[in-house]
Amino acid sequence: MERITLAHGDGGELAHKLITDVFVSMFHNDHYAKFDSATLTLGAHELAVTTDSFVVKPLFFPGGNIGKLAVAGTINDLAVVGAVPKVLTCGFIIEEGFSIHDLKTIVQSMAEEAKKANMTIVAGDTKVVERGSADGLYINTTGIGVISRPLDRKICEGDSIIISGSVGDHGVAILVARGELGLVSKVESDCASLYSLIEKAMEASEHIRLMRDPTRGGLATALVEICEDFGVTIELEEERIPIKKEVEGACELLGFDPLYLANEGKVVMIVPKEDEQAVLDALRSQPEGKDATVIGTVRATNKGQLLLRTPLGTTRRLYRLTGLMLPRIC
Amino acid sequence: MERITLAHGDGGELAHKLITDVFVSMFHNDHYAKFDSATLTLGAHELAVTTDSFVVKPLFFPGGNIGKLAVAGTINDLAVVGAVPKVLTCGFIIEEGFSIHDLKTIVQSMAEEAKKANMTIVAGDTKVVERGSADGLYINTTGIGVISRPLDRKICEGDSIIISGSVGDHGVAILVARGELGLVSKVESDCASLYSLIEKAMEASEHIRLMRDPTRGGLATALVEICEDFGVTIELEEERIPIKKEVEGACELLGFDPLYLANEGKVVMIVPKEDEQAVLDALRSQPEGKDATVIGTVRATNKGQLLLRTPLGTTRRLYRLTGLMLPRIC
Repeated sequence: MERITLAHGDGGELAHKLITDVFVSMFHNDHYAKFDSATLTLGAHELAVTTDSFVVKPLFFPGGNIGKLAVAGTINDLAVVGAVPKVLTCGFIIEEGFSIHDLKTIVQSMAEEAKKANMTIVAGDTKVVERGSADGLYINTTGIGVISRPLDRKICEGDSIIISGSVGDHGVAILVARGELGLVSKVESDCASLYSLIEKAMEASEHIRLMRDPTRGGLATALVEICEDFGVTIELEEERIPIKKEVEGACELLGFDPLYLANEGKVVMIVPKEDEQAVLDALRSQPEGKDATVIGTVRATNKGQLLLRTPLGTTRRLYRLTGLMLPRIC
Repeated sequence: MERITLAHGDGGELAHKLITDVFVSMFHNDHYAKFDSATLTLGAHELAVTTDSFVVKPLFFPGGNIGKLAVAGTINDLAVVGAVPKVLTCGFIIEEGFSIHDLKTIVQSMAEEAKKANMTIVAGDTKVVERGSADGLYINTTGIGVISRPLDRKICEGDSIIISGSVGDHGVAILVARGELGLVSKVESDCASLYSLIEKAMEASEHIRLMRDPTRGGLATALVEICEDFGVTIELEEERIPIKKEVEGACELLGFDPLYLANEGKVVMIVPKEDEQAVLDALRSQPEGKDATVIGTVRATNKGQLLLRTPLGTTRRLYRLTGLMLPRIC
């Protein structure tokens, strides 16, 4: 009998297959094809809706906790489709014996993060399960936003790929926080809500083609999905992708590729070449975007491949994350 | 150190305290005070939003499964505030090793239940946790509806209390399905979406004051909450509350009070006396409402008490569910 494996949950190839085979095929409608978030029209309003469950382990890590992660993650899912985050719901599954003090700390982080984006938490739910039936706490957050200005979504040859900062920080921070590998590092998770950063970029360019927050599966998987969905080929320049020295070091030690590590406070954008500088300036004017940089270019508009040009001048194709990398990263 | 207990999750007194102390106080805003669902205005639209996590054990039970329960439960939360269910999101937390066949069966039930209410599933999320970190499968569903006609919400002395059918079926069905008590029973869960039933009732009366779906905490807790929130006193007539013989029998054997057992396909309504018959006729015209009946009356409008008149003519006050009754009932 076919069974669920941890790799079904890591945002890579198997997760993609599960979503396609089970959820998209059974819930078939145009909205659900994207699964992660959807836009829908309600009267005069174009709404964005997104949902995520958070099972990150450990619950507290350098740079954040599960509550901050949940709210920021939901805000980011809305912001990258050009929506103004409006309302949030949250569902808590709590293991018997969980500390009420820790719960309060986590809920406080959620309230603070929601307030920053001016989001109202409108409804919630708590369930308690017996000791051993959950791992402390799981949180679901669902967000609704109003799309103020839809994205361009017309990717053209020559468009620039911009990342708002270094990749892999969240993945390494979680790995270190687990303490299983005896690894010590000062890397903090980049966990942050990006609504105001993205707002600035959208003010700087009216033609941002597309944005993604490269979470599970990392930068590479997020871009492979864009290449496949839009049939475009993107070429990244390896040397230009910002990676912190500590992240690079930990990845070398552990055999991870930082391009596949989760980020929780980064946005990757496709913008017209002529708007590149304006968007970079806008991003760099904000603390979350100070290391924003151009990392690649849209090369052709019909092949659907993600390519990586190495410092040696060779080019290799990147694929969706396959197999298990890091479970319970978010 | 204060810790979470199973009783914090059963919809009774402790759950109420947790919600008030932790969530409402930290997420403070008018919407969140109700916690379960909220209404908000978006342009010309009045929306209803609700979220629930489902941790029912076992996942399959006579009359339904966790997927049907999740979707029906969300539809009902929207319907009881007078909303037309529109869109649904779902988040899955799956334990490593879970059968993909079972997952497909559950997802299929969700799709069917959503279709019945003409609801579109717009976004989803899957997370996988290691063996032992969850109990098979947990589902969160969040629903958005459009309020077509807001409820009256002005409860008056003399108003009638109507229940759409027998109480306690879901609670007993789950208990029996767990097989822990060696109990055998033919009782099926009443798990069903009530949107079309409620629509019929709203067509029959323009002045339905208020509706609730008496889930966790049962009929008594749902009505105690109304009495407290609106400062009204409600008197129920014990003899008139429909309870199936098998449910009554199981409750006697196990020491449970059916008024506190969860229902997943029942609605309790407060309607003006003069509309009582029209609403009853409308409810009884549908299979889910065939046993609808009047079970009580609003007695005074300022005391905030729920009273039960026994067949002996005595009256006792009912309170919110206290202590642990049945964990993981939904």
